[in-house]
Amino acid sequence: MSVVTIERKVLEKNDTIAAQNRARFAQHRLFVFNIVSSPGAGKTSLLERTIEHLKGRLRMAVVEGDVQTDFDAQRVARYGVPVVQIVTHGGCHLEARLVQDALASFDLAAVDLLVIENVGNLVCPANYDLGEALKVVALSTTEGDDQPLKYPGMFRNASVLVINKIDLLPYVNCDVATIRRHALQINPALTVFETSCTTLAGIPAWGEWLAAQVAAARA
Amino acid sequence: MSVVTIERKVLEKNDTIAAQNRARFAQHRLFVFNIVSSPGAGKTSLLERTIEHLKGRLRMAVVEGDVQTDFDAQRVARYGVPVVQIVTHGGCHLEARLVQDALASFDLAAVDLLVIENVGNLVCPANYDLGEALKVVALSTTEGDDQPLKYPGMFRNASVLVINKIDLLPYVNCDVATIRRHALQINPALTVFETSCTTLAGIPAWGEWLAAQVAAARA
Repeated sequence: MSVVTIERKVLEKNDTIAAQNRARFAQHRLFVFNIVSSPGAGKTSLLERTIEHLKGRLRMAVVEGDVQTDFDAQRVARYGVPVVQIVTHGGCHLEARLVQDALASFDLAAVDLLVIENVGNLVCPANYDLGEALKVVALSTTEGDDQPLKYPGMFRNASVLVINKIDLLPYVNCDVATIRRHALQINPALTVFETSCTTLAGIPAWGEWLAAQVAAARA
Repeated sequence: MSVVTIERKVLEKNDTIAAQNRARFAQHRLFVFNIVSSPGAGKTSLLERTIEHLKGRLRMAVVEGDVQTDFDAQRVARYGVPVVQIVTHGGCHLEARLVQDALASFDLAAVDLLVIENVGNLVCPANYDLGEALKVVALSTTEGDDQPLKYPGMFRNASVLVINKIDLLPYVNCDVATIRRHALQINPALTVFETSCTTLAGIPAWGEWLAAQVAAARA
């Protein structure tokens, strides 16, 4: 039995559980996205700004995935949003089983939008379906504009690209038009947003797009 | 046969080949470091500045690891340094076997300092010994100051921390003293440098430290 065979079995088992999660989300007409990025690209800050933007309009819940610590869950919990922290203890991605276990802590009937914040890793989480409606990849302008070509798997499997930290553009060697061109070359179907969690630029457009996705899931 | 058992066997096989690489490096009295970081933390820029600083004094060679593309190898090759690109085609880390294969392309007798630039990933490369003398972890100030606690495996296995992009400190919510404190809490033996590849701050100190390591390997 080869390593490759084992790996395929792991992915097949993951896909089975992801399908169960997806059926459960559909039953509750819940919109769920899985947000992925490099470490430090600003996923948690983006969630904080998103929660502020949608406050009082949508009931959000968050699953936080981290290799270690519950810092991100603590940050989100301050906003009064239900949050469950998954610590992978060295694991480089979330798997559907971990999300399934986390769901037991939520009253899904009281949630409109569930966000799964994956482990900071632009490689491994690309291959693991968690049952989400779509993957959002966040990319910081400080990472440079060739990232979509260097890490194509993630950009191919995502439906949305959020180009974050656009307030730092004057100080870094990065061109947003080049990021867009490279990302769309890998995946022409990507929806692209540009955001800053410091200036709040782009947060309303992103937040309203999310609200529309939630409305569509409810319809 | 469980997945865990397979994984242990993969690591054991990797360690065997890493030991062969290490013996070969020792035979040539070569100093070798393995540089790891999140995607976009500036590993290749740091190498470019390092090559410039040590030019004419040390003979460098570079192994570039990337998920896709040979952009980084092209950047390094412009400096007239021997470079081999390893494309992992989706693989999230370098393994000792890939490095061993790459070594065939170098005349190791004509090299003083070999740099292995790993895939951009702050999780998986931590567990794979490549035969290097030590691991250098690069962390960008834009990633935030809690990264060492959130990704402890890498900081535990590294000997050197390079805090890069310090020119961006005025524009980001990051405190270098906090990075240092968190990193040393995980690994008190870490040697820490602060660098900017834009202003060149810290590059001489880092370059001279490397030159001293090379001299020690030669002695």
